[in-house]
Amino acid sequence: MRGYFVSFEGPDGAGKSTVLKEVLNQIGSELKTQYLVTREPGGSKIAEKIRDIILDPANDKMDNKTEALLYAASRSQHVEEIIRPALKEGKVVFSDRYVDSSLAYQGAGRDLGIQEVKQINDFATDKLNPDLTFFLDLDPEVGLKRIEKLRPGQEDRLEQENLAFHKKVYAGFLKVKETYPERFVTVDATQPIDQVVAQVIATLKQRMPELF
Amino acid sequence: MRGYFVSFEGPDGAGKSTVLKEVLNQIGSELKTQYLVTREPGGSKIAEKIRDIILDPANDKMDNKTEALLYAASRSQHVEEIIRPALKEGKVVFSDRYVDSSLAYQGAGRDLGIQEVKQINDFATDKLNPDLTFFLDLDPEVGLKRIEKLRPGQEDRLEQENLAFHKKVYAGFLKVKETYPERFVTVDATQPIDQVVAQVIATLKQRMPELF
Repeated sequence: MRGYFVSFEGPDGAGKSTVLKEVLNQIGSELKTQYLVTREPGGSKIAEKIRDIILDPANDKMDNKTEALLYAASRSQHVEEIIRPALKEGKVVFSDRYVDSSLAYQGAGRDLGIQEVKQINDFATDKLNPDLTFFLDLDPEVGLKRIEKLRPGQEDRLEQENLAFHKKVYAGFLKVKETYPERFVTVDATQPIDQVVAQVIATLKQRMPELF
Repeated sequence: MRGYFVSFEGPDGAGKSTVLKEVLNQIGSELKTQYLVTREPGGSKIAEKIRDIILDPANDKMDNKTEALLYAASRSQHVEEIIRPALKEGKVVFSDRYVDSSLAYQGAGRDLGIQEVKQINDFATDKLNPDLTFFLDLDPEVGLKRIEKLRPGQEDRLEQENLAFHKKVYAGFLKVKETYPERFVTVDATQPIDQVVAQVIATLKQRMPELF
C-alpha cells in the first residue's frame, strides 16, 4: 500500500495539535497501516534545532527572508529524514503544519509573496505535497485570544506578532486554499472539539477508505 | 561616497582569513572611508547561531538542500543586518566568503545545481553582489593538507568532506569565475603570503582608486 500524507493547517489557536491528537486517539488502532504524527517547524533533531532559532523571542531582529529560509531549511530536513522515508514504507504521515503555513505566514503575513516563498519550498521539498490538507478555520482574533488564555506570556516569536499580521496570514491561507481546492478540506474550528474531530475522521474515511 | 563590497573566495586552506587580515593591517589606516571586515557563514548574532548548526560535525545527517537553505538564511540576515546598512553609510565591506561559496560548495560540491542555488541566494540577498571578488586559487588537495596541519582533528563539517567533494567545489569556483569575469580577480595562493597580500592591495588601488 502506498503512503498517504495528511497535513493540518490553520491560524494559531485553531486547535491543530489537540485535534490531531484526538483524531489518532480515536482511529489510530483502526488504521490498516502504520502511521506517524509529526510537526513543523521541527520533526527531526536538526530541524528542531532550527525551530529553536526561528521561534526564540530573543531573535527579534530576524529578517523576514531569513525566517522564510529557516522554515524551508527545517522543512527539507523533515521531509528527507522523516516524511519521505515513512511514505516509502507505506505509512500515513500526519503533520501539524507544512508548506501552506509558510505560504500564509511568510508569503502573505511577511509580504514576501506567496509565489516567491513557494519557489523556495519547491526546492526544499522537491515538490512533495500532501494528499489531503485540513484547514481548521478560525477568526485569527479568536485564535490569538485562545493562545493568550492557554499559555499566558509564553507566546513564541510568531504568536507574539500583532493582530494585523495574523489577519494577513489568515487571508493568505484563504488564497492558498483557493489555489489547491482538490486537497483542501475546511473544518469550522469554532465548533466544539468533538465535532471538529468527528468531521476530520469522517473525511478521512470518505477520502481514504482503503486505510480503514 | 558610495560603499564598496569586496569578497574573498577560494577553497578551504587557501588563506582567505589570513590574507584579509594582513591586507587590512597594511592599508586599513590609508583608506579614505571606514571599513568593515566580516565573514560567512555568520557575521551577525542570528547568523552565527545558524553557522553553528551548519558547521557542527554532529549534524552529519544534514540534507544537502537543508545545508544550502541554512547558508542562504544566514546570508540574508548578514546582508540585511550588517552588509547593506554598512554600504548605505558609504563603508567598504570586506567579506570572507559570500554567495559564490554557496554556488561552489552546495551548487557544484553537493550537486544541487549552480543555477538552483543561485535562485535561492537571489531571494536571500535581493541580488546584492560584490563589486570585486578575489579568488585565492589553490589546488584543493594542497588546501586540505594545509588545514590538516593548521588545526589537526578540528575540521568543521564541510572541511571533513573527502577530496572528491573538494575537487567538485573547486571546479564549481572555476565555473562561477567564468560566469562573472568582470568582478573576479584570481590570485595564485601558492605564492608566499606577502606576495598574495601585495597583489590584492595593488588590485584594490587600481580598481578603487577613490578609496586611497
